[in-house]
Amino acid sequence: MDVREAVEALDAFERRRYALASAQAVLEFSELTDPPAAQIGRGVAMAELEAADHDLLCGDEAQALLAALESHAAELDEDQAARFRVLSRDRADRLRIPATLEARRVELVNRSSALWKEAREADDWGVFAPVMEELVALYREIAEASAPEARPYDFWLDQFEPGSSEASFDALFGEVTPRVQEIAARVRTAISSGRWTPPRTLSGPFDPAAQYALFRDTAAFEGIDLDRLELGETIHPFTSSVDSHHVMIANHADPEDLLSGLLAAIHEGGHALYESSVEGRYDYTCLAHGTSTGIHEASSRFFENYVARNAAFAPALRELIASRFPESVREVSAHDLWRLVNEVHFSTSRMEADELTYPLHIVIRYEVERALMAGELGVGEVPARWAELYERLLGVRPTGDLEGALQDVHWSMGLIGYFPSYALGGVIGAQFIHAMREAGVPFEETLAAGDLAPVRRWMVEHVWHFGRAKDTKDILLDATGEALNPAYYVAYLEDKFNPSSALFEM
Amino acid sequence: MDVREAVEALDAFERRRYALASAQAVLEFSELTDPPAAQIGRGVAMAELEAADHDLLCGDEAQALLAALESHAAELDEDQAARFRVLSRDRADRLRIPATLEARRVELVNRSSALWKEAREADDWGVFAPVMEELVALYREIAEASAPEARPYDFWLDQFEPGSSEASFDALFGEVTPRVQEIAARVRTAISSGRWTPPRTLSGPFDPAAQYALFRDTAAFEGIDLDRLELGETIHPFTSSVDSHHVMIANHADPEDLLSGLLAAIHEGGHALYESSVEGRYDYTCLAHGTSTGIHEASSRFFENYVARNAAFAPALRELIASRFPESVREVSAHDLWRLVNEVHFSTSRMEADELTYPLHIVIRYEVERALMAGELGVGEVPARWAELYERLLGVRPTGDLEGALQDVHWSMGLIGYFPSYALGGVIGAQFIHAMREAGVPFEETLAAGDLAPVRRWMVEHVWHFGRAKDTKDILLDATGEALNPAYYVAYLEDKFNPSSALFEM
Repeated sequence: MDVREAVEALDAFERRRYALASAQAVLEFSELTDPPAAQIGRGVAMAELEAADHDLLCGDEAQALLAALESHAAELDEDQAARFRVLSRDRADRLRIPATLEARRVELVNRSSALWKEAREADDWGVFAPVMEELVALYREIAEASAPEARPYDFWLDQFEPGSSEASFDALFGEVTPRVQEIAARVRTAISSGRWTPPRTLSGPFDPAAQYALFRDTAAFEGIDLDRLELGETIHPFTSSVDSHHVMIANHADPEDLLSGLLAAIHEGGHALYESSVEGRYDYTCLAHGTSTGIHEASSRFFENYVARNAAFAPALRELIASRFPESVREVSAHDLWRLVNEVHFSTSRMEADELTYPLHIVIRYEVERALMAGELGVGEVPARWAELYERLLGVRPTGDLEGALQDVHWSMGLIGYFPSYALGGVIGAQFIHAMREAGVPFEETLAAGDLAPVRRWMVEHVWHFGRAKDTKDILLDATGEALNPAYYVAYLEDKFNPSSALFEM
Repeated sequence: MDVREAVEALDAFERRRYALASAQAVLEFSELTDPPAAQIGRGVAMAELEAADHDLLCGDEAQALLAALESHAAELDEDQAARFRVLSRDRADRLRIPATLEARRVELVNRSSALWKEAREADDWGVFAPVMEELVALYREIAEASAPEARPYDFWLDQFEPGSSEASFDALFGEVTPRVQEIAARVRTAISSGRWTPPRTLSGPFDPAAQYALFRDTAAFEGIDLDRLELGETIHPFTSSVDSHHVMIANHADPEDLLSGLLAAIHEGGHALYESSVEGRYDYTCLAHGTSTGIHEASSRFFENYVARNAAFAPALRELIASRFPESVREVSAHDLWRLVNEVHFSTSRMEADELTYPLHIVIRYEVERALMAGELGVGEVPARWAELYERLLGVRPTGDLEGALQDVHWSMGLIGYFPSYALGGVIGAQFIHAMREAGVPFEETLAAGDLAPVRRWMVEHVWHFGRAKDTKDILLDATGEALNPAYYVAYLEDKFNPSSALFEM
């Protein structure tokens, strides 16, 4: 093959994978509207599509294709070289895990979901524990077989956030956790001493159809091209995408709670903006998605926290709500609204956590996972360790396992090592804001003007448009001039949650 | 391979094809809700999925699999033998058309759609004519290459309705057309002499959301398991299915016209009942769908015409409407409603045709296609021939090409030879009713009782549950004891549209 033939073969190969991935994304999203009886058939189809992609990526044709591209490496343009690099890495990652172990993993994960649900119904970790034992053992076995030189937990951290490790998260959490604990302690004192008075709440109920209209307004306000956006209904909000021209957000509309859905819409909107801002010419290639969970969370939490929970943005947020629910904000000023979306809860629930305590919820999961994967903690001891960590970091104890280690779906989905990447979102986002300001984007002023375009333009140019052509580390270095640096994040939290902040004033 | 291994390989092979077909069906249906920008990517994915299925079906693996099954033919059970038979036939059909011609056909059909739309906007057959010339030439070329022994039109008729030919349709239309013309002439006289007074109409407007609720009621009334049914919105109603557990109906709700959507719901419901009544054990195999267009139309028109337009069913139909639109039928009796859904229109539009004139619209298309494929008619002469045939058979002339040969999407989709199969629906359905009555199902009495279960049971047992395991010819023979016989259909029309019928009485 000459270089032209090799690139044509690459195009054809990637379009075949695109079709399989597109089908998987659409089938998964269609679960929200499919009739109940369709579930079994969809499972069969999803498994077959996944297997077809596995065969394609791991097969001889891909090997020959990558060899041909490698032999013409010097002749590839920048995009082609990036596609070669990412595809090679994806193939190596997929091949690293032995097929027999991967098959056992898939089977085990399928089995876990049902037991997790049973355990939740019984509010009993003991129901889930046996399958969690199997998960931990198998995840250790896979890590040892795939990367014998690494510590088992390192292997899995790297799977979800490439380049990360226990050492890197230790360094991060070592710097962040004590500072957040201090800030949280001061806020706690302010609350208990009555200095932080409860904010006014929005008066409901909130018609679900009007909420969905508001979610669409919000997406447009964030800058998502509505011609590319599909909205759906679910229980736990999520975003997925086919390519930059087709992004899907599933949200929920609680008739009693507008802010839950609205903040989810803004958060998921950040994911959707990232996916839809990837270079259009990357459609149908392996570059056509966000590069990592960390950068994705940096985009979603950017809008959820740094924009929507910013005092400067409160008037614009109030306007958005007022256009669909004028009655609900009649008695609520922009200042009230800002205080309302920033209420701090010392609770056992990660899903309902506020901006300040969120990293503490994550570090608890990190500590438990690390100990499990190192063999220092038995699965049966998880509830006790969980309660002890919550007591220590948040001053609360779960009343049962449902409020404790059974609250998250992640482990039952096989996502051991995934939680820590959530913590990167806030840290990276704060670092982005610093870089934006350095580049002359007046962050608070643009929010106060109700115009997100300057912020979005910076994100597109420095972060989003690259897709997977650039990894987390290089994005950080090139966009901000330094490696991951939690100083901006900590300074931000200290400033915002300082007891002399206006946040504490009625 | 021993027989067990061969059957396992067949299962695995069919599940792979199921996944591709499932993805195609879901992607196609998702077009109804996808954002506009998703269209191009969906086209890419659909083409790739189609190509993947083509490669799978035509590849060496399928050949080896079929050879292995054939060597164990005597050991296969009835289902396995049917799967082997249908899969072999599908493969032979796909291989029969040379790959280069098929590629040209796909390219040409893609090109045709846009030109058909342009031609419609210009109301000018001349815009579409050049691509129609190419279509006719290519369809003749494909037929000659694939089945040199057959007449070109015969090849394409057989593609859409296996076993059919110009001779078989000549025989059918030769018997049906003159009789329908006679009946229509009598009705025409009755109308023009004022003996057929216009029926009372339903008073609108009709809220679209309530219409969709009614469509769902209607589906349940017909006996569709709602756990298997997905409803969507479109312009031209259609039904598609993933397998017996997941059927999809797209319908439309015109705020000014309830009957259009309601009759479509009933018609599409017949298709959906057929697909969802195929043996569940055929899911994930090539047997899991209806066996032919003819039997499908026999099912859909069965409910649309023989049930919904039956005098005995009018009270039940009125009840259905009344439950969602009580005001609209307050002044309309069951008799009025029966007359309303049976209004005869001598018009140029097939889509709005009534039960009586519908076959005349079909025979016009059959005559034009036959002459084109035989080289007896030039593409440029189509509008004139069309107008002449409409004048002769329906007494009306289209005022332009939009009302004429540009009204149907079929040719632009490459469906030359498809129209005649529509005519089979009414004929086969009438033959089924005769067989039901012989088997002791009191047809009108069950409709009058508002209970479709006995009718449905007969259809499941004699027609639907076989899926593709039995072809049209055998279904007809086994279910009715005779080959296609239009006598029941003609007798039915003569009885129903007799000028002394109650249909003519206010």
